[in-house]
Amino acid sequence: MAEPSLMLREQDLPLLVDLYELAMAQAYWRFGMDDDAVFSLFFRKLPEHRNFVLACGQQQVARVIESLRFTDEHIRRLEDLNRFESGFLDWLRQWRFTGSVRAVPEGTPLFPQEPLLEIRAPVAEAQMLESLVMNYVHLESTLASKAVRLVLAADGRPVVDFGMRRMHGLDAAWRGVRAYRVAGLSGTSNIQAGTDFGLPVKGTMAHSFVQACEDEMAAFRMYAELYPGTTLLVDTYDTRGAVRNIARWLKDNPDVDIGGIRLDSGDLGEEARDCRQILDEAGLDHIRIMASGGLDEYQIESLVAAGAPIDGFGVGTAIGVANDAPAIELAYKLTAYQGEPRMKKSTGKRSWPCPKQVFRRFGGDGRMQGDLIVEASEEGEGTPLLQPLMADGRLLRDAIAPLEDQVRYTREAVASLPDQQKQLALADQAYPVRLSESLEEKQAQALERIAQLQEWHYQDQD
Amino acid sequence: MAEPSLMLREQDLPLLVDLYELAMAQAYWRFGMDDDAVFSLFFRKLPEHRNFVLACGQQQVARVIESLRFTDEHIRRLEDLNRFESGFLDWLRQWRFTGSVRAVPEGTPLFPQEPLLEIRAPVAEAQMLESLVMNYVHLESTLASKAVRLVLAADGRPVVDFGMRRMHGLDAAWRGVRAYRVAGLSGTSNIQAGTDFGLPVKGTMAHSFVQACEDEMAAFRMYAELYPGTTLLVDTYDTRGAVRNIARWLKDNPDVDIGGIRLDSGDLGEEARDCRQILDEAGLDHIRIMASGGLDEYQIESLVAAGAPIDGFGVGTAIGVANDAPAIELAYKLTAYQGEPRMKKSTGKRSWPCPKQVFRRFGGDGRMQGDLIVEASEEGEGTPLLQPLMADGRLLRDAIAPLEDQVRYTREAVASLPDQQKQLALADQAYPVRLSESLEEKQAQALERIAQLQEWHYQDQD
Repeated sequence: MAEPSLMLREQDLPLLVDLYELAMAQAYWRFGMDDDAVFSLFFRKLPEHRNFVLACGQQQVARVIESLRFTDEHIRRLEDLNRFESGFLDWLRQWRFTGSVRAVPEGTPLFPQEPLLEIRAPVAEAQMLESLVMNYVHLESTLASKAVRLVLAADGRPVVDFGMRRMHGLDAAWRGVRAYRVAGLSGTSNIQAGTDFGLPVKGTMAHSFVQACEDEMAAFRMYAELYPGTTLLVDTYDTRGAVRNIARWLKDNPDVDIGGIRLDSGDLGEEARDCRQILDEAGLDHIRIMASGGLDEYQIESLVAAGAPIDGFGVGTAIGVANDAPAIELAYKLTAYQGEPRMKKSTGKRSWPCPKQVFRRFGGDGRMQGDLIVEASEEGEGTPLLQPLMADGRLLRDAIAPLEDQVRYTREAVASLPDQQKQLALADQAYPVRLSESLEEKQAQALERIAQLQEWHYQDQD
Repeated sequence: MAEPSLMLREQDLPLLVDLYELAMAQAYWRFGMDDDAVFSLFFRKLPEHRNFVLACGQQQVARVIESLRFTDEHIRRLEDLNRFESGFLDWLRQWRFTGSVRAVPEGTPLFPQEPLLEIRAPVAEAQMLESLVMNYVHLESTLASKAVRLVLAADGRPVVDFGMRRMHGLDAAWRGVRAYRVAGLSGTSNIQAGTDFGLPVKGTMAHSFVQACEDEMAAFRMYAELYPGTTLLVDTYDTRGAVRNIARWLKDNPDVDIGGIRLDSGDLGEEARDCRQILDEAGLDHIRIMASGGLDEYQIESLVAAGAPIDGFGVGTAIGVANDAPAIELAYKLTAYQGEPRMKKSTGKRSWPCPKQVFRRFGGDGRMQGDLIVEASEEGEGTPLLQPLMADGRLLRDAIAPLEDQVRYTREAVASLPDQQKQLALADQAYPVRLSESLEEKQAQALERIAQLQEWHYQDQD
């Protein structure tokens, strides 16, 4: 086995696929099943303690779907698995996606059973995309859904991402920052991702810098000289002592420009109050206090509620891995084939057939009042959420908004949530989502047909 | 802002860095601080419910460190941040890593305060690598530490990774499979990662295939024809009904080769017993039963303990995101500069100074008896865990073992854990880890020196 490349590369994406997807694709190809299928991406239930999921990642994955091509190198690897016929491999070699994709806009709050995205394509094509589509949308939706909670808890104060070190790999550390921007974060420590996705890049010093200088004030003086307006990390040895030293230093040197201090350990509310007092008594009320160190949305909410004089938050692990809900139970299910509704009835996992649309009703105050899930062909009251994203295998360029528009859309969408859904605690009342009568009927019909088919088998074979 | 590339690329790695690391590097450069530093990667405490961490990812990150170079494109991006002087950017442009790296072998069980990896290099160099090193090692260690619990719970039965769809991004889905192989998994659904890292690629069919065919037996016949020895997914509509149909079909067609069935919903233990009985009564005792569907290590342990006739497990979300412990509190801390011990004393985060070594003692039965953390220059009893991985900025080729050797090393290392640490539940007795007297003294001395420095400041400025 040759040593793999240092990183996964763009040309590796076509084989970042679960084997069963290509096994099924070959079976569809072999037995001439090439009619259109519709697959729906949705979740059956919310993560525990969560009131909504923020949809994210659809635009990225659409760009990827458009680009997928199998090369000779891919074909050789597949040959080595001894499972694929040369006719199917020839088909793969000339394949490109020919279907259409509809999706809700990125930054849309969603609830159980509501499709985030639907793909219509010849069944083999739509099947092959399952894991890649899920991986893309799951990552960004998981991280955006977490980050928006931090934004809500901080109640207007900036929240900055410090998560790269504990995010799950390089792609998470990169695309995660895109999701954070959509969700409303104010900055990131990550240079590559911040500059790629237009989120301001932030960061000053670590404890190691103070430790290397050992003399803490010497470290602070160096930073003040190099980075006017900098934020000094004050908890390496003794927080209050460090802040008292800063106050005395600035009294004697009024030309030194320090923009803020950062607290990274201890009881952040108490430390912030003491530091604020020391700074204010020295006439340094322009120096802002940043807090970091294992923060999550609950701690931020408490600090804000207690009136802690903290001007901004740096958050790492909690948003980096979405610690309370690192996975959303996204499912990618066949809902129609040959124009006919399809579903499964596995215990506890019964699905709703048919391509769908979601209509969202808003009140006069602009707040969300309830959703209706209908068949895609039905009409409904309110705003239809699923919009065309790809047609004939091509990205609809008009469907791709600049990221700043999506940031604004998300802010407005989150603001329009009912108060119950906006709080961190689990809502007493679930957000109202109904299914149309027609969908209920189609499910009943599909169940009946499945029962008949099974009965027929027993009779046939007894 | 130009549209970013579809994926993060190898050439992007140098800027996948937190801004503060380059800000500190510039300060070190500017003020002539170019002495050697030692940074230690360790964790302060175990994730809740865990008895050990399985170290993984060191070899991958060493390859990356060796390759890092800043190009003109990187320098232009950094210029745009308006924070870096041209002299520092010139230094970056010619920079390559010149230091040394020591690490424990991949697959080593570790405990709090034990260094997983140590970097010795001019302080700016070692500082710049912080987030990238942590991201690499955190991902693989987090996923390997989870996966090994599934392997232990399955007690010899194969465990196959189905996690790609819910893993955090493409890099996790790729390098995660490497970690799974080290941890002892038997296969993966992911073609690219499985073939890159030599883990057998597995997979047969999804519910969508049965749904598209609608007639379940037609779907099974197609698969039997295409894939002799295949595993049929039997829970799309009615598990027992499907298995009875299979039994009748095989009775009439003894030449049809079915290797197994897969259960993916319901009470897996009960379903497995019923299906086993149906199959055995039909003389089909060679057909194996695989189980999947939201499984974690606790469910697998229960199924195994209850004697459920399940021959192998497919696991997705639980290992894919390490659901109970998606983050390990890895820290990367300065422990020495200019040959002098360094540490921080932040509340709750006091660290141990000095470069270190860990000696592990084994009993006559080959089982681990206790660890001693010492200064790197001290001798100790037992096996020294930290071994050279890079020197003078170059990977030590002898230090890179083929992956199959690491799989074997891990299996033996995990087998040598005390029974208490091998169980899923939290051990009553923590594994014994002591620190040498010399380290205790060095910590006391460092604390004293820090106190003196702070006192000196107060006197100086009052």
